[in-house]
Amino acid sequence: MHMDLVAALDIGGTKIAGALVDDRGRILLRAQRPTPAQEDGDTVMGAVEAVLDELAASPLWSGARAVGIGSAGPVDRLGGTVSPVNVPGWRGFPLVSRVRSHVGGLPVELVGDGVAMTAAEHWQGAARGHDNALCMVVSTGVGGGLILGGQLHPGPTGNAGHIGHISVDLDGDLCPCGARGCVERIASGPNIARRALSDGWRPGPDGDASAAAVARAARAGDRAAVASFERAAQALAAGIAATATLVEIDIAVIGGGVAKAGEVLFAPLRRALRDYATLSFVQRLEVAPASTGTDAGLVGAAAAALRMGARAGEAHPQAV
Amino acid sequence: MHMDLVAALDIGGTKIAGALVDDRGRILLRAQRPTPAQEDGDTVMGAVEAVLDELAASPLWSGARAVGIGSAGPVDRLGGTVSPVNVPGWRGFPLVSRVRSHVGGLPVELVGDGVAMTAAEHWQGAARGHDNALCMVVSTGVGGGLILGGQLHPGPTGNAGHIGHISVDLDGDLCPCGARGCVERIASGPNIARRALSDGWRPGPDGDASAAAVARAARAGDRAAVASFERAAQALAAGIAATATLVEIDIAVIGGGVAKAGEVLFAPLRRALRDYATLSFVQRLEVAPASTGTDAGLVGAAAAALRMGARAGEAHPQAV
Repeated sequence: MHMDLVAALDIGGTKIAGALVDDRGRILLRAQRPTPAQEDGDTVMGAVEAVLDELAASPLWSGARAVGIGSAGPVDRLGGTVSPVNVPGWRGFPLVSRVRSHVGGLPVELVGDGVAMTAAEHWQGAARGHDNALCMVVSTGVGGGLILGGQLHPGPTGNAGHIGHISVDLDGDLCPCGARGCVERIASGPNIARRALSDGWRPGPDGDASAAAVARAARAGDRAAVASFERAAQALAAGIAATATLVEIDIAVIGGGVAKAGEVLFAPLRRALRDYATLSFVQRLEVAPASTGTDAGLVGAAAAALRMGARAGEAHPQAV
Repeated sequence: MHMDLVAALDIGGTKIAGALVDDRGRILLRAQRPTPAQEDGDTVMGAVEAVLDELAASPLWSGARAVGIGSAGPVDRLGGTVSPVNVPGWRGFPLVSRVRSHVGGLPVELVGDGVAMTAAEHWQGAARGHDNALCMVVSTGVGGGLILGGQLHPGPTGNAGHIGHISVDLDGDLCPCGARGCVERIASGPNIARRALSDGWRPGPDGDASAAAVARAARAGDRAAVASFERAAQALAAGIAATATLVEIDIAVIGGGVAKAGEVLFAPLRRALRDYATLSFVQRLEVAPASTGTDAGLVGAAAAALRMGARAGEAHPQAV
């Protein structure tokens, strides 16, 4: 095989997905295991190794030149370690060195999952062609990543773009992170559902109390459901406007389950952006739904390895 | 003369300062004119030209290789134009081309004044040696700039780092920019004074109702004065934490008149940062007072020209 491929890993609290990806971002082979999230660190690592072994059993593996990892955060790109909130057995776990030794010394690049999704959207999705972009995932949590000056901006530790935990309401509700009024505390799916319920919305006969059910109710005109999405949109707008004002972006791309609500979210979001993105240099900011779908994590991990250079011979990938 | 110098311009609503600066950041010659801020655009440009002419009358001028401009914003670095809020005669004014033609075609670099101050602090001040920094000016307004990955990050238009106009209180007081709850609306000098007054603080016999007078009262234990600085510190902390969470900085440098309040501001700011900078990768964030003083605008404009490359032959300086 002469093809240059990247082995990609997308590590979350529910599943560990792996793939062999070519230099045009096509997935040639997949493998997947459930994340044994409540087990000890070595057991979790065993699931990662099982995914890698399944990929390595293919003749395609001989084309693999690097490994790209997108992981639930926080991550530490320089130290090569991960501490995913939902995987308690991994605290400062040396994922990069463990993966590198398992794959015979191939170079390994590690970024947070928000950064990986951003790399995917910039490579193949709604941020393509934009040199300065914020990409976000709004679902159970709110994450994100940045493209600045045409380059992925992971930050020294690989966590940059963490828009879910900036405060847009400094006296607001306490967030599990310890701060108050974080974007995630207002705009995540569970918080959209919680607010709609406390404001009088009631689930239908199926008992579905998810943000998706709130979105259906909002489309049908339910007042509390509409108001809850409007409040989420306002918080997202304040956070997106803050990002644009701080680093100058020209597009914000939004994916994740909550973005599937469509215009129930995007219409009030565009209105609220006009209220918060006021300075001349941020007024042309666009908002667009993400387009890379469920493979964003894998494609983005591959992109991070290809584009930031998981270079052979490096002890740890360096900031670019 | 074989010395390589930069002609620097610091353009504000009150004065237009100019200097010849060497490649170690030393000011060799100065010139200054009041800004005829209420006059037409050509009259304001006349004051800029008078400053340049005074510099050009020196034999040192033959060493000038480029012009660096830091201007009150908004600026448009790519278009080469400026629209300073306090200079109504300049709206989309083609400052770069006018300066370039006045100085015989030398390359010209334009950035906002917050970006210029940041370049100075990174070159010679409290941000020296830091690859990822936010530098701020807190005075009548609140401005700032960013160092990312060891480089000045002006953004495509030269306005990046505009921390004064990010909202940290999405339902808060209306800001003159049109948004609500901006950092500047809470933490600027006039807002510190306004809040102290409305909360019961009274100026002394000298009638001084400035933020500096509030700082003196706070040091003497006045409750309303202390509370007003604490609220400003809380807003600054939320904005600084948001910046760190978005782009990963390891230091925030604060200059401007309000920073002269010293521990009256910095002590509650450090406390509040612990409340808002909660994620693992931002917990080691430092805060420090700026150290480049009143020449920061000139030194920073020179630094921007030297470091971002106001390159000969370029129609407009490009994003780096």
